[in-house]
Amino acid sequence: MGILPRFADQWVLTRILKATGQAPIRLVVKGGADVSPPGVSPVATVVLQDRNTLAGLLRDPEVSFGDAYMDGKIEVEGDFVRFLEEIYLAMGSAGDAKWYSRLASKWLDFWQDNSPDGSRKNIHRHYDLGNDFYKLWLDTQLVYTCAYFPAPSSTLEQAQIAKMDHVCRKLRLQPGETVVEAGCGWGALALHMAREYGVSVKAFNVSREQIAYARERAKAEGLDGQVEFVEDDYRAISGKFDVFVSVGMLEHVGEAHFGEFSEVIHRSIGDTGRGLVHFIGRNRPGVFSRWIRKQIFPGAHTPSLRAALRILEPKDYSVLDIENLRMHYAKTLEHWLERFEKSRQQVTAMYDSRFVRAWRLYLAGSIAAFRVGHLQLFQILFTGSQREPLFWTRDPLYAGDLGGQPMAEGAKPVAEKVREKVKWTHAMS
Amino acid sequence: MGILPRFADQWVLTRILKATGQAPIRLVVKGGADVSPPGVSPVATVVLQDRNTLAGLLRDPEVSFGDAYMDGKIEVEGDFVRFLEEIYLAMGSAGDAKWYSRLASKWLDFWQDNSPDGSRKNIHRHYDLGNDFYKLWLDTQLVYTCAYFPAPSSTLEQAQIAKMDHVCRKLRLQPGETVVEAGCGWGALALHMAREYGVSVKAFNVSREQIAYARERAKAEGLDGQVEFVEDDYRAISGKFDVFVSVGMLEHVGEAHFGEFSEVIHRSIGDTGRGLVHFIGRNRPGVFSRWIRKQIFPGAHTPSLRAALRILEPKDYSVLDIENLRMHYAKTLEHWLERFEKSRQQVTAMYDSRFVRAWRLYLAGSIAAFRVGHLQLFQILFTGSQREPLFWTRDPLYAGDLGGQPMAEGAKPVAEKVREKVKWTHAMS
Repeated sequence: MGILPRFADQWVLTRILKATGQAPIRLVVKGGADVSPPGVSPVATVVLQDRNTLAGLLRDPEVSFGDAYMDGKIEVEGDFVRFLEEIYLAMGSAGDAKWYSRLASKWLDFWQDNSPDGSRKNIHRHYDLGNDFYKLWLDTQLVYTCAYFPAPSSTLEQAQIAKMDHVCRKLRLQPGETVVEAGCGWGALALHMAREYGVSVKAFNVSREQIAYARERAKAEGLDGQVEFVEDDYRAISGKFDVFVSVGMLEHVGEAHFGEFSEVIHRSIGDTGRGLVHFIGRNRPGVFSRWIRKQIFPGAHTPSLRAALRILEPKDYSVLDIENLRMHYAKTLEHWLERFEKSRQQVTAMYDSRFVRAWRLYLAGSIAAFRVGHLQLFQILFTGSQREPLFWTRDPLYAGDLGGQPMAEGAKPVAEKVREKVKWTHAMS
Repeated sequence: MGILPRFADQWVLTRILKATGQAPIRLVVKGGADVSPPGVSPVATVVLQDRNTLAGLLRDPEVSFGDAYMDGKIEVEGDFVRFLEEIYLAMGSAGDAKWYSRLASKWLDFWQDNSPDGSRKNIHRHYDLGNDFYKLWLDTQLVYTCAYFPAPSSTLEQAQIAKMDHVCRKLRLQPGETVVEAGCGWGALALHMAREYGVSVKAFNVSREQIAYARERAKAEGLDGQVEFVEDDYRAISGKFDVFVSVGMLEHVGEAHFGEFSEVIHRSIGDTGRGLVHFIGRNRPGVFSRWIRKQIFPGAHTPSLRAALRILEPKDYSVLDIENLRMHYAKTLEHWLERFEKSRQQVTAMYDSRFVRAWRLYLAGSIAAFRVGHLQLFQILFTGSQREPLFWTRDPLYAGDLGGQPMAEGAKPVAEKVREKVKWTHAMS
């Protein structure tokens, strides 16, 4: 902008607004230019603190916006999520990404490759931010993946339990079976499966802090004989199991490593086991937000559904059921953002205000992306080629009766049980 | 075999049995060699009428077996379907097909290409065999696709109605909406949607006999103002609709034409519509039975699930729900085969005994293929990228309450309604 006269700002803002397809937003350079689409009341006002910020937006809109917002060079007054939805809709889906965005993404793929070493580094950067941080805004069990809300008004705590049950019930877990979990977070699902469905679980995760927490919790619940938490990469999984489950880890695998992921599944459950993979995906291939990869989630990747099937197809796995829960992730994130905002001061004290602003943008941006459909949430249930399908119809999954199969105590349908007491609370540790 | 001495037959049969992985079957050349695996009681005895038939099996097992069975040169004594299951399991899935099978399949792809002209010819050969033939063994409404059995003991008539309701309810059809159907058979689904859900339907099919029958039926039911049956190729579909539906036609499209199919969907419902595609698929790419393509279904093709997503991905469609109903197709085919066998004499009188034997093998072979998992049945529900998902959870689909949405009279859940009277019976025409 250095060489452009100040009065050009108005022209540039008008161009930006036009590029958004005249989104209902007002754009302002502090103390200067000011544009908004005629005849509509804007959902938000975006205030750029100076002309350099405006120049950045012209160079690389996505990353510059994120960094400038993080640095406080951009303020958004009004409905932040609605504003982001408007921008996403205007940008088109990721399949429409510009060439420089694709190129820059390839570059990131290379630098943030999820090799065993790369994964450890990438995962460490996000998940080892400190358990105390996540405790401020996740549910009491620290489940950091899409919940399943029986009704939109369900609480986050109920919805995370419902999600874990939904996964277990889809898989028809039976007491005494063995389960391997790839990417177990703080261990909530592994412990839930063991406690409520009577299975033995071996759960893998490369995050040191998460594994330490999960082990402590297993001990406290007396489940450490039934659940083994292993601090290692999914590629290190060995042994034979009845069931493979992975909830919210595929996003960290990367398509370049889908073949390895596929091999891990097949050597764990062979042709007679069954499994469920739950992940953030897309309608069609596209680049993942470079800003999020830069500031929040190094190595993150969201495959199209078709791309994800490259994991199952070569091993002759039968897809039994695919469910798309994208609106549930939007709702989950709304709960997280609300709790996060309530803990703003504590987070600022732990880190700084740049960190708070970055995470706000990440959480709000994710809500917007799921709402407008740029991101999807898929649960794929599959069985080995040498195995009968798990059910005749899906009715029992919804009716509270698993078709005469023996069920572990507690494996009742979500609608029937309202677990008021979540034994595990933040108070414990 | 001409140059081989007769005593070599025993050795050849032993080799064949070995190639089946010692399947529990007994192989006999009439009046000669006789082998069976030691220590097991065979599920069936295969009797080859002469040494030439044995020679044929060595040249091209799949096609020769089918042709020889059709010609009465092979008899199978015992459980025919179980025998075919054992053979399929021994052969491995289609992904393991031999090179000559792959090559011969490519050749068939070329000769039986589903171009507009090719399709008309291919479809004519199967579906225009005469409505009287199909009336002998299909349900009363002539639904020639996989049914949905609320319970394994449901009747075929109930299960076909349940299937149509399952499709309509997944799509959340609302009165007054417009639906386009690609490949409508004898019109049962189109009429069901109009009658029970109050929608208008435009339904396409290139089979002259089927369309004539469907039109007559629409008139008789007074639905000809609401349902238009068009005798034309799916590629000729024009106009804008709320919903796209195609049940059991993708098998006739062929992967070479998936791009055209995709364009047809997109120009019909755009980015705001929704749709359902129901088709016979596979776990992974493989060749379709060459014998079936030769004698029964020219041009038939069964894509892997991943291959089928090539139709939806380029248009940014959101997959909401995929359900695998393969055991329901096995059950549907059991009903068909049973009715077919009861009508054996009538079919022989209409055609000849070769025809009867060919269709028996096709129906029994299909049961076996679905049972062992060489074939799968997928229903894919999807929406345009500019549209909200159709539901919050799937509960209402199973609970009989479509979440407060207005419902047409009759759109009650399968469990609640037992439609005793199917108004349309064979007696009508």
